[in-house]
Amino acid sequence: MSGSVPGQVNPPSRLLMGPGPITADPRVLRAMSAPLVGQFDPWMTATMTEVMGLYREVFKTANEQTFLVDGTSRAGIEAALVSLIEPGDRVLVPVFGRFGHLLVEIAERCGAEVHTVEAPWGEVVEPEVVEHAVRRVRPKVLAVVQGDTSTTMCQPLADLGEICRAHDVLFYCDATASLGGNVFETDLWGLDVATAGLQKCLAGPSGSSPITISDKAAAVINARKHVEAGIRADDDIDHGARIASNYLDLAQVMDYWGPRRLNHHTEATTMLYGARECARLLVEEGMDGAVARHELHGRAMLEGVRGLGLGVFGDVAHKMHNVVAVEIPESLGAEGGDKARAAMLDDFGIEIGTSFGPLHGKVWRIGTMGFNARKDTVLVTLAALEQVLRGCGVPLTAGGGVGAAREVYAS
Amino acid sequence: MSGSVPGQVNPPSRLLMGPGPITADPRVLRAMSAPLVGQFDPWMTATMTEVMGLYREVFKTANEQTFLVDGTSRAGIEAALVSLIEPGDRVLVPVFGRFGHLLVEIAERCGAEVHTVEAPWGEVVEPEVVEHAVRRVRPKVLAVVQGDTSTTMCQPLADLGEICRAHDVLFYCDATASLGGNVFETDLWGLDVATAGLQKCLAGPSGSSPITISDKAAAVINARKHVEAGIRADDDIDHGARIASNYLDLAQVMDYWGPRRLNHHTEATTMLYGARECARLLVEEGMDGAVARHELHGRAMLEGVRGLGLGVFGDVAHKMHNVVAVEIPESLGAEGGDKARAAMLDDFGIEIGTSFGPLHGKVWRIGTMGFNARKDTVLVTLAALEQVLRGCGVPLTAGGGVGAAREVYAS
Repeated sequence: MSGSVPGQVNPPSRLLMGPGPITADPRVLRAMSAPLVGQFDPWMTATMTEVMGLYREVFKTANEQTFLVDGTSRAGIEAALVSLIEPGDRVLVPVFGRFGHLLVEIAERCGAEVHTVEAPWGEVVEPEVVEHAVRRVRPKVLAVVQGDTSTTMCQPLADLGEICRAHDVLFYCDATASLGGNVFETDLWGLDVATAGLQKCLAGPSGSSPITISDKAAAVINARKHVEAGIRADDDIDHGARIASNYLDLAQVMDYWGPRRLNHHTEATTMLYGARECARLLVEEGMDGAVARHELHGRAMLEGVRGLGLGVFGDVAHKMHNVVAVEIPESLGAEGGDKARAAMLDDFGIEIGTSFGPLHGKVWRIGTMGFNARKDTVLVTLAALEQVLRGCGVPLTAGGGVGAAREVYAS
Repeated sequence: MSGSVPGQVNPPSRLLMGPGPITADPRVLRAMSAPLVGQFDPWMTATMTEVMGLYREVFKTANEQTFLVDGTSRAGIEAALVSLIEPGDRVLVPVFGRFGHLLVEIAERCGAEVHTVEAPWGEVVEPEVVEHAVRRVRPKVLAVVQGDTSTTMCQPLADLGEICRAHDVLFYCDATASLGGNVFETDLWGLDVATAGLQKCLAGPSGSSPITISDKAAAVINARKHVEAGIRADDDIDHGARIASNYLDLAQVMDYWGPRRLNHHTEATTMLYGARECARLLVEEGMDGAVARHELHGRAMLEGVRGLGLGVFGDVAHKMHNVVAVEIPESLGAEGGDKARAAMLDDFGIEIGTSFGPLHGKVWRIGTMGFNARKDTVLVTLAALEQVLRGCGVPLTAGGGVGAAREVYAS
C-alpha cells in the first residue's frame, strides 16, 4: 500500500447477463447486512432449522438432511463426493461439458475408479447409454450435472433415477446452474444427493452451497463418522474409513445442523442470511412460477438472438431455460467475439459470457436467470447487442432482436 | 412450510462478547451489500489484486501469494495442510487447546504421520520442547495455532520460526483467533503459511479465510500442480502427487488469483467485499494501532473481572489480548454457569462464551475483539455481569468491575 489506503468498495454498474454469477437480487444483499448473532444462540439455531425447511421446498424433497455447505457451489460438489466415495469405489460420470469433467476430477481426487460416458458438446446423454454403462461398471455412485453452462444443455434426470434405483446406485446431481430455473424434483426423480449454488437462478452471490441428502445417502455417510477429538463424547465410536476432508465431512456437518448441534466450522452467518432470502423469495414466488419465469424470458432471449439473425448452438430442445449459446458471426473474425463482448461491457455496462474448451471463440453465452430473468434485461441486452454488432459491421435486421422477443411476450 | 412463507430475516439485537464470532463492524456489512460484477471483469480482477495488497499489510508480509480461501477459517486451515502435506509426510503439532487437536485431525485426514507435543490447557508450549521434538521427528511441517480460544493462550512464534529455519521445516500457523488483535509478523518470524478468518479481530462475518504463502511453500505446493481437464492448456504438465482436494487445492487457487486468472471456483464476491473492508479498516487504523486497541480493552476487561472478585484461568502473561477465561464462581453450582450466561443473553442481550473439553462448566470466555474492542462494550458487559451474578447470589463488590476497568482507561 505504501501509505495510501484505498477507499470504500465502489463497483461499476453492471448488468450481468452471462452464464453466472448474475446481478444479485438487492433484497438478498440487503438481508446480508443484518447483524450477526452467536453461533448457538436459540434464534440462530432456529433460523438454521428454518433454512433447512426453505431448501426442502426449493429442492422439492422431504429429506431431513437439507442444509448449506459453507463455500461456493464447488465446495458442495466436493462435500457430496468426498463424503460418499471411499478410495477404490467405482463412480460413473456422464460427461457432456466442462462441469462433467469437474465431477470426474473431484471423484478422482477422492480416490474413485472413475468411468465416463460422453456426449458431444451441445447434446445430452441418452439413458440407454447410461444404463448400459451402469450394468458394465456397477458403480457405487452415478454423478451427473443437470445443467452444464459450458454447453447450455440440461440433462433429463428422471430416467437416470429409475436406472439408479433398479441397480442400487447412489444418484448424485450438481444442480448449480439449473436449480430454480428448470424443473428439479429431488424425491420424484430418486436423487440421493443434490447440490447447488446461489449465484445462478437463486439470485444471490456465490459463497454458499445448498445441499440435500436422502436418508439412504445419509446412512452411507454416517457409516464413516469420526467425531473430532476436541469435542467428542465418551460414547462416540468411530465408524468405517475416515472421510478424507474435515471441512467437507458431511457426517460432521449433519451433526452441526442436526439436533446434536455439535460444533464444526463457525457458520458463515451472513451467507446464511443471503441463502435464506434466496430461498424465501423463490418459495414466495412458488417453484413452478420461478421455472415458468425462467422459461418465458429464456425463450424471449432465444427468439431475440434468432431475430437478430444469429445462430444458436446445441440441441435447443434440451437447452436450460436460463442460458443460450449464441454463435459468434464468422464475419467478426478470430478475435471479434471478444471485441464485441468488450464493447457490450465498456459501452453498455452489460456482461455476456465467453466460452470454454471446444466452444472457445465460437459462442457467447447469454444468461437470463435469477434477478435478471426479466423483460427489461432481455430487451436492453438485445438492443445493445444489435448496436454493437452493427458497429462491427455484422449485417442484421434493425429491431429484429427486440421485435422477436416482444412477440414472445405478446403471445 | 405448509403454505406459509417466513418473513425477512430479523435477528434479535445482540452484543457478542464471546470468543467469536463477534458483532461485525456495520461498515463491513454495508460493504457487502455492494452490487456484484462479473468474475473476470477488469474491475473485479483489479479488486482481487487490491485485496492481496491489503492482506499483505495485515499479515505483515511481502508474500506474493496472499489472498482469500472461499470458506470459513477452517477451510483455510485445511487448504494449507492438504496442499502442503502428502500422504506419509511427518507433521509436528504443538497442542495446547482444542484447535491444536483440530490441526492434528486435519493433518491426519491428509494422510500425515502426525506427532504432537502437548502443554496443559492454560499454558503455552516451550520452544525447547518443540526443538527437541523437531530433532526427533524431523517433520516436513510444523503446524501450530497462535491463539487458541479454547484456553485463551497465545503461543510465542518467533523462536519456533528460528527452529523451523534451522531444521528446514515448513512453518504453518492458524492465526484465526489472534490476527489483528495480537502482534503477528509473517516474514519476521519466518512463517511459510498462515491463515485466518474474519469473525474475530478482523470484525467481519465468518465465511472467508485470508491466507499468505511464502515463495518456498508456494514452490512446494506448485510441485504438485495438476490443472483441471476442462480448462487445461496444451503445455500444462502434471507435477507430483495430486492434491487430495480440488476445492482447497492452493496450486489451482494461486492460478486463479495470479496473472493467469485460470478459472477455478466462482469467487464469493460478497465475502470478498467484506474481507476487503475488514482489511481496509485495519490498515487505515494501522496494525500496531489495532493491536494496541485490543491490548487496552483486553486489559480493561481482565482487570474488570478481577475487580468483580472473579478468578482468571491460565497463564495471563501469555493470554491473547482479545479474550479472557473467567472462572465460574463455585457458589453457582454445576449448572449455574450456564444459567448466568443465559441471563446475560436473555435479560441484557449480551453473549459471553461457554467452554470446551476440560474447561466445560469451569470458565466463561469473554471476548473484546474487532468491532467490540471498545470501552462501552467492556463497561456494559461488566455492569451486566455484576447484576446477573448478584441476582445469582454471588458475593461481589458493587461497582468493582466497572471501577477497575475505568482505572485502566484513566491511567
